[in-house]
Amino acid sequence: MKVLLQFPEGLKDKALRYAKELESRGDEVFISCSPTFGACDLAIDEAKKLGAEKLVHFGHAEFHKVDFNVEYVEFEIDAPLGILQDTLEYLKGYDTIGVVTTIQHVHQLGDIKAFYERNGKKVVIGRPYGFAKKAGQILGCDVGSSASVDSMVDAHVYFGGGIFHPLGAVLATKKPFVAVEPFENRVERIDGLREQYRRRSRGRVLSAVDAKSFGILLSTKNGQHNPALAKLLKDKIASAGLDAEILVSNTFDFDSINNMMEFDAFVNTACPRIAVDDTERLRKPLLSSNELMEVLAMKKDLAKMRENQVIQ
Amino acid sequence: MKVLLQFPEGLKDKALRYAKELESRGDEVFISCSPTFGACDLAIDEAKKLGAEKLVHFGHAEFHKVDFNVEYVEFEIDAPLGILQDTLEYLKGYDTIGVVTTIQHVHQLGDIKAFYERNGKKVVIGRPYGFAKKAGQILGCDVGSSASVDSMVDAHVYFGGGIFHPLGAVLATKKPFVAVEPFENRVERIDGLREQYRRRSRGRVLSAVDAKSFGILLSTKNGQHNPALAKLLKDKIASAGLDAEILVSNTFDFDSINNMMEFDAFVNTACPRIAVDDTERLRKPLLSSNELMEVLAMKKDLAKMRENQVIQ
Repeated sequence: MKVLLQFPEGLKDKALRYAKELESRGDEVFISCSPTFGACDLAIDEAKKLGAEKLVHFGHAEFHKVDFNVEYVEFEIDAPLGILQDTLEYLKGYDTIGVVTTIQHVHQLGDIKAFYERNGKKVVIGRPYGFAKKAGQILGCDVGSSASVDSMVDAHVYFGGGIFHPLGAVLATKKPFVAVEPFENRVERIDGLREQYRRRSRGRVLSAVDAKSFGILLSTKNGQHNPALAKLLKDKIASAGLDAEILVSNTFDFDSINNMMEFDAFVNTACPRIAVDDTERLRKPLLSSNELMEVLAMKKDLAKMRENQVIQ
Repeated sequence: MKVLLQFPEGLKDKALRYAKELESRGDEVFISCSPTFGACDLAIDEAKKLGAEKLVHFGHAEFHKVDFNVEYVEFEIDAPLGILQDTLEYLKGYDTIGVVTTIQHVHQLGDIKAFYERNGKKVVIGRPYGFAKKAGQILGCDVGSSASVDSMVDAHVYFGGGIFHPLGAVLATKKPFVAVEPFENRVERIDGLREQYRRRSRGRVLSAVDAKSFGILLSTKNGQHNPALAKLLKDKIASAGLDAEILVSNTFDFDSINNMMEFDAFVNTACPRIAVDDTERLRKPLLSSNELMEVLAMKKDLAKMRENQVIQ
């Protein structure tokens, strides 16, 4: 069978060995070399172009239904749990804690819960929401497991690598938030990021308030393709008497966006995290849909104030 | 009609005004925001994903036949010719010169030829080869207009922006080569690049001579998709007792290639310029098909010498 293998960035170093294994069973194997950010990002176009009969997607659980033969190979990683001892200092005084992690470590949640219970904590693990499939699992675009238990806990714990996943959870909650990085042996309170990101969001809105033309980003990634939302936003912008066009790409390249120099601001309908994460390389503000609504509301208010000669 | 507009990087700053013009005629317009490197790089997958009926591709002439409704909008740019005066100093002693340019300035070749003839030169303009469509036109992957006249001229002149186009022509010729940058008002002898690029190529070959595993880059861009070549190279590598896998992407991302850590070297079957241009960000050597052949030949020689105990 002709198959295309796809690995997220962190697993691309295992591509050759899996390819060889499948070839030894008689498959004709190709490996996707494109950046891969999640199960929203299935390389179906590449598979179709190659005439492959199956896409084998490693490292993520099924995210949504697609019209192609996709085999999901989840990837359990046993992270060392020794670091949990160090978190107790950070959690002093917080009796009930919510714990979340990524798909790779969901199988370790039982052990993590047991550790905290042995140390006198009550542990709450949120049920899966939207796109996440397992209790306690969070995705960059689905942090329901944290958000849904926010009112029940005194603090949150994220267990796993990187800042991408906990950042979404931090921004969607109000309680103290501790990130536990088992591979780099690091514990950190990260709820200070809330204020920082709120300030940045406010900055984006204010810097877009005079924008006259908006580029609306529409991804062709199968799990991020929102043409209806893009059109709705385009109509809303047009109704405000401003220019808007829909800009299409699979993975948005910041250099190419920067080359679209006639646009004063951009609006994101793709991965919700694109407009939250590091957009410093963009010359113009990149707004979330909500931030666009704020911009349009502010423009309306300003216009009224000008009309009534409250301001010039 | 639902249309997708596509602009190369240098024309993306005109996207909004063209989109508005087409919308005013009643079209439903989307703009591709992906990096676009040539007419080999038609955004047909994006157009199909959107259900568009037509792709309007700006800035390039037709490159190859595709099974989609594509309208090519060429882009003539009148570059200032005053700089030509400064080139005479560089061309002293060279009586017959070959002149090439990019598609944007082909319409200026008559004036450029007339200028040099007024100044006592004989001008030779090569006929179009392979993918180029017009006399004197060069592409990154087709420099036949220069190469075919190399034996007839004393020196070459490239007129136009950037180094991407003349670099290919320089490497495919042997005579003195003058690059004329009309926008930055700059004239430069660039044939010194030949030796530099030959040294780099030699360096790539030598650094890949101990490689045991090769990743063969196969682009899904419609004008760069060479699965037959990729398979041929894979077979050649396998025949030498080494590992090879075919790595698939549309636009190759150097970070993703770097994440493919099990491969010792990479081989390019996409745009021939990927392995020639700036690959400094890659951790492993990226070889052209020819360089791979050199590597395999060297490996064979080394094995024989080891067998005969000429070397250890």
